[in-house]
Amino acid sequence: MTKLALPSLADIEDAADRLQSQAVRTPLIENSRLNELSGGRVLLKAEPLQRTGSFKFRGAYNFLSQIKPDARQHGVVAYSSGNHAQGVAAAAQLFEIPATIVMPSDAPEMKVENTRSYGAEIVLYNRAKESREDIAAEIAAKSGATLVPPYDHPWTIAGQGTVGLEIADQCAALNVEPDAVLVCCGGGGLTAGIATALAARSPKTKVYTVEPEGFDDTRRSLEIQSRQGNDGNAKSICDALLAPIPGQLTFTTMQQHQVIGLAVSDDDVRKAVGFAWRHLKLVVEPGGAVTLAAILSQKIDCRGRRIAATLSGGNVDSAVFEDCLANA
Amino acid sequence: MTKLALPSLADIEDAADRLQSQAVRTPLIENSRLNELSGGRVLLKAEPLQRTGSFKFRGAYNFLSQIKPDARQHGVVAYSSGNHAQGVAAAAQLFEIPATIVMPSDAPEMKVENTRSYGAEIVLYNRAKESREDIAAEIAAKSGATLVPPYDHPWTIAGQGTVGLEIADQCAALNVEPDAVLVCCGGGGLTAGIATALAARSPKTKVYTVEPEGFDDTRRSLEIQSRQGNDGNAKSICDALLAPIPGQLTFTTMQQHQVIGLAVSDDDVRKAVGFAWRHLKLVVEPGGAVTLAAILSQKIDCRGRRIAATLSGGNVDSAVFEDCLANA
Repeated sequence: MTKLALPSLADIEDAADRLQSQAVRTPLIENSRLNELSGGRVLLKAEPLQRTGSFKFRGAYNFLSQIKPDARQHGVVAYSSGNHAQGVAAAAQLFEIPATIVMPSDAPEMKVENTRSYGAEIVLYNRAKESREDIAAEIAAKSGATLVPPYDHPWTIAGQGTVGLEIADQCAALNVEPDAVLVCCGGGGLTAGIATALAARSPKTKVYTVEPEGFDDTRRSLEIQSRQGNDGNAKSICDALLAPIPGQLTFTTMQQHQVIGLAVSDDDVRKAVGFAWRHLKLVVEPGGAVTLAAILSQKIDCRGRRIAATLSGGNVDSAVFEDCLANA
Repeated sequence: MTKLALPSLADIEDAADRLQSQAVRTPLIENSRLNELSGGRVLLKAEPLQRTGSFKFRGAYNFLSQIKPDARQHGVVAYSSGNHAQGVAAAAQLFEIPATIVMPSDAPEMKVENTRSYGAEIVLYNRAKESREDIAAEIAAKSGATLVPPYDHPWTIAGQGTVGLEIADQCAALNVEPDAVLVCCGGGGLTAGIATALAARSPKTKVYTVEPEGFDDTRRSLEIQSRQGNDGNAKSICDALLAPIPGQLTFTTMQQHQVIGLAVSDDDVRKAVGFAWRHLKLVVEPGGAVTLAAILSQKIDCRGRRIAATLSGGNVDSAVFEDCLANA
């Protein structure tokens, strides 16, 4: 595999052009109660309102739009616990490219159902016993399908980075340059994209990742400046954020921009999902609510500061959601 | 009582100026799945994201901002099943005016709790046996408090009509002049305000009310061009839309603009609340989802048309909400 270059601001701007007619320019939401509670001004980028219910559509669509015409007929393949799955499936449907998605058998039902509803073929695997990378590679080898990486590819990162461009533009329209932006972090694609966009467009904004405890590989990696994996024994309700280790491109980008890592507990997350339901009137999935959890549980001091934060997705099964409402 | 004039476009524009720093300019949301299902282009004005979780804050704040300084010290009083209650309480807190709110004892818990959280005093009454108007009038007579009408007052209507101005501006930014706008209707304040705003700003847009079956007083009144009440025997989960009869000012305004009435069943509404959760990622209360219910249950033909619709509020107890998710 040729060494891939880090995506530039221009790559993200190109992605924004490609996405313009297909992706939702999601609103930046402010809530008076959240401002009061945090003591600062909090601006939430509401990606649950994105096509397919998460930011992943942005990266997937930008990737698929760059697959050469003669490769399209062989289809695409991706592995994902669900949001990248839906993003790739929906983008593939728009481009009329066949899609095969490798999903863990314990993925949220809604994510599996939605992925299927976009016309993708789904291959389930056992998360404990099988390697999703191997399964996807085998499918690609047999069919000639193009693998769509969930985060560690410049096209994916550039598409996801359009969230950062929009945050910068929407904050500028409010005459705000945020002191910090909090980003939900699995493999780091969204963070890398946002960090690249904001370094150019909002250079005073400090970038933070938020991960679930036990899956805080990015936080630990950034602390010792070397990629660290998770031990694989932890559990979390944040199914979207269980990536085993930061990506190579994403980690290099995060290092470059001196990103800082935070972590929250599942209990913090349940309260945040409940808070979003009760006060924001938004449906946010656990992995999409870690940033809000960090704010509400005071993992970051918001007092007197302007804080932007991504809510990255809203695909959650009703049983998990109802469990969080009991905490609201 | 002096005869009150219907609010004009200028009144609504003045209200928009007053609200600018306090109300949320709520997003106009588009969803690809809803477009596909309806066969048209649907643009949803998301007032659950408004301060206090419903559009009612707009009317309450606009009303309170016009109470004379020497009357403010005597406080305000309002009656409401919950959204106007929260709107008045939150506005009163901002103006530092004491507020007393008369609420039915069977109001949703969340609405009672939120109203109390804004510092208002709550007086509960029995919906079947007592008159909320009498209770509020007695409080006003004793204390000198100003009554804040929930819909049938030009200041209330003008504030609520700012939703219409924003719909017109946001549609214009998309280069869309909607063929129709659907409005959730209780006493008709929101509809009257929106109809007035759109008659000036988007004159080709036809205005429709949507009510719950059994509380379709506006629909019947518009049909025979004379105010008709509900018989009081029906039940509905749409607690926000149980007004007994259209207001005088609101009905005159709706007549002027040739508004047409639609009605939906509670089952239609449950499905709409579930759809909003599953696909829109928005928390919408039953009364706030009647427009979406009308679209999904094809009470209006959306095929090939551009349809704007209000989602008017999102204050719903978890038990009712979870019941709707079972329909999603």
